[in-house]
Amino acid sequence: MLSRRTSAAAPLDAENSQPDGTPTSTAVEPGGQAPLSRRAVIGWAGAGVAIGAAGVGSVAAATMDGKGAPASAPVVGAEVPFYGEHQSGIATPVQDRLHFAAFDVSATATRESLVRVLKEWTKAAAAMTGGREVGSGAASGLPQAPPDDTGEALGLPASRLTLTIGFGPSLFEKDGVDRFGLRARRPEALIDLPKFPHDNLDPARSGGDLCVQACADDPQVAVHAIRNLARIGMGVVNVRWSQLGFGKTSSTTPEAQTPRNLMGFKDGTHNIAGTDAAALADHVWAGPGEGPEWMTGGSYLVARRIRMHIETWDRTPLKEQEDIFGRSKGEGAPFGKLRERDAPDLKAMPEDSHVRLAHPDSNDGLMILRRGFSFTDGTDGLGRLEAGLFFLAYQRDTRKAFVPLQQRLAGSDALNEYIQHVGSAHFACPAGVRKPGEWWGQALFG
Amino acid sequence: MLSRRTSAAAPLDAENSQPDGTPTSTAVEPGGQAPLSRRAVIGWAGAGVAIGAAGVGSVAAATMDGKGAPASAPVVGAEVPFYGEHQSGIATPVQDRLHFAAFDVSATATRESLVRVLKEWTKAAAAMTGGREVGSGAASGLPQAPPDDTGEALGLPASRLTLTIGFGPSLFEKDGVDRFGLRARRPEALIDLPKFPHDNLDPARSGGDLCVQACADDPQVAVHAIRNLARIGMGVVNVRWSQLGFGKTSSTTPEAQTPRNLMGFKDGTHNIAGTDAAALADHVWAGPGEGPEWMTGGSYLVARRIRMHIETWDRTPLKEQEDIFGRSKGEGAPFGKLRERDAPDLKAMPEDSHVRLAHPDSNDGLMILRRGFSFTDGTDGLGRLEAGLFFLAYQRDTRKAFVPLQQRLAGSDALNEYIQHVGSAHFACPAGVRKPGEWWGQALFG
Repeated sequence: MLSRRTSAAAPLDAENSQPDGTPTSTAVEPGGQAPLSRRAVIGWAGAGVAIGAAGVGSVAAATMDGKGAPASAPVVGAEVPFYGEHQSGIATPVQDRLHFAAFDVSATATRESLVRVLKEWTKAAAAMTGGREVGSGAASGLPQAPPDDTGEALGLPASRLTLTIGFGPSLFEKDGVDRFGLRARRPEALIDLPKFPHDNLDPARSGGDLCVQACADDPQVAVHAIRNLARIGMGVVNVRWSQLGFGKTSSTTPEAQTPRNLMGFKDGTHNIAGTDAAALADHVWAGPGEGPEWMTGGSYLVARRIRMHIETWDRTPLKEQEDIFGRSKGEGAPFGKLRERDAPDLKAMPEDSHVRLAHPDSNDGLMILRRGFSFTDGTDGLGRLEAGLFFLAYQRDTRKAFVPLQQRLAGSDALNEYIQHVGSAHFACPAGVRKPGEWWGQALFG
Repeated sequence: MLSRRTSAAAPLDAENSQPDGTPTSTAVEPGGQAPLSRRAVIGWAGAGVAIGAAGVGSVAAATMDGKGAPASAPVVGAEVPFYGEHQSGIATPVQDRLHFAAFDVSATATRESLVRVLKEWTKAAAAMTGGREVGSGAASGLPQAPPDDTGEALGLPASRLTLTIGFGPSLFEKDGVDRFGLRARRPEALIDLPKFPHDNLDPARSGGDLCVQACADDPQVAVHAIRNLARIGMGVVNVRWSQLGFGKTSSTTPEAQTPRNLMGFKDGTHNIAGTDAAALADHVWAGPGEGPEWMTGGSYLVARRIRMHIETWDRTPLKEQEDIFGRSKGEGAPFGKLRERDAPDLKAMPEDSHVRLAHPDSNDGLMILRRGFSFTDGTDGLGRLEAGLFFLAYQRDTRKAFVPLQQRLAGSDALNEYIQHVGSAHFACPAGVRKPGEWWGQALFG
């Protein structure tokens, strides 16, 4: 029987290691029993399922055979440690698929019931990110009771699933009411986002008291995770909106091939690397004393649903497309340069080009960690592709990062003719759960 | 420079081989020039992108180096031959992702304009399934003109993309009008599907003059394909509805792990194998003289969007869930048996169980080739998961296969309490395009 979760497993994430490289996660659950993987439970642990993990380093994770010796074959679809100083799913190498859900706390819920859900969510998240089932599983327990786990991920590996929680402004105060006694703990950086030029926000796709970002290399694993969390929260929290994504648009692993967005351009060439501890400290993690203590080591997440006017874009000449981005379409080289990663000469680009406007050199060195995904939600009533970019950005202080950047872009970016922001949300994502027994939001509610 | 398309490549599909095993596809395009792959064009052909192809045999496809010698490393994300006796995407080992689009021909279109689109579609389909760009590409051609290809699949391998075309009843006659002179060529088997008990069909998600099923191991490749076909068809055909799917629910490769549907049960244990030529001839391919000549070697496709009442299902006891399917949830063993593939004892199952009702032994040996995918389209207005099964089934004659089977299931299946059919369509998928220069629908229109 294999357990892929061992202390010898190579840590996949910079943020889940101590400075000396020791993984902070442990192999053993609170009960002291080594957990079984979903694959081991149904007895086909030897078969590999390869899903998009190659090239991002996860294949380096080692497995152990029954005697504790490292198995020779690398495992794709490996596990990202859940416990750590920071939440995983932020600096973690971007997975291939996303299921993002915003939740509202129901009108009848109490602080106590919400805390109960957060505790149960944490346990379930630790299990699912470890490739295990929720509770006693989908096929065990009392036959007279519904299974604890919905079962559709039975037999699938962990698939680098990460679950990242965030708290929205309305959790701290809604319509002037301090529902859960949290008003005094709201971070100043967790502002109500201002209205930006050209915004056309759908309230049904915006906001939310809580969010969970599920990323995995297999959509079935990501969907399973959100579904089981929603189920655990039933009666206390309800899904307000959700978004599926694919084709990550911003890699956080510079050595990997830069992915392309649905406009056909490389996106995220100069993103913050998940392994760059200095840049993460400067731009992504909230530092001590910068806000309430519970946010130290956390990060602020801005989510924007950006619809692309695909059909219009597809009728735009190549030269104009390249002028709008300030890069060549094929190679992705900045204007006047040959290769994608050549240092851009911003003055060689049109003044309203996207890369020029968004570049750190045009913004006093400002950087955000982007983690966006493409989406395609079928077609709208006019037969047009309902598609675009689900933009996710993590930052140390939204007031000094996304807000000034977006004000600049919304005012001048040549891209605005082809895109529209139709959903928006802002969340404070606390520091990581450091060890079993702790729970999501403990420092906030505790 | 690598070209992954060579005559030495192992055929991936039973249906794309002649009876003696010779691949029917060729390595060279009509112009006589060996085509370049998208990957070769941008110069990173050495890097592998592994996406869900393991275990279904596609990794066996060989590549050639510049001197024509087989490369040693297998390629994941390989190519499925486009040309052949039958269309690919039917008996082809099921890929991981789906983008399905139904199109209507616009009111102003003529037979000539439709034929022009079908010819252009065929050329584009041959290029994209070969991992190449449409036309002159996304980053070449006149800078004053829009690129021929939208570009978001640049750098991605073919990813086992298949594109399968079908013709709906309304193409042959709509509101009593024979728009394209095709009425006399309508197959008798291409019936207007009857209304089944419990149907709750949304016209906006049903029907269509044409359909294209795009399957690939990478959603970006499948989405790219449908988008580029829609773009080519602009003004002549418009997307009527489309559906994205993931997590194939019915494997056509018996040796692979049987996938699970969103109810958490294994689905498709006894599906027709894509390699079982006898079963395919008996149940999937239309035979000579059974209908119009243009359908010989083709197949009839029924698409049903089946919404699952996920939240209700998740509250159902394990025993009841297993009674409804007639299988155990964990192993998938039929009642009274130990292993998934043990021959079922139908009498041991409840009379209204899904497996008992749908089994060939309960239906005079009737079999259909299922190729369904799970879908999750976010949440509905009540916060419920908008999710279920996008059922795709191919058969030799719908009147003798899906219709009697669904009449039986819709009348008695215990599953009906938890599902609802909300979309429906029927298409005649012609035989394959045998060689470059031929086009989709040539035998129908010719």
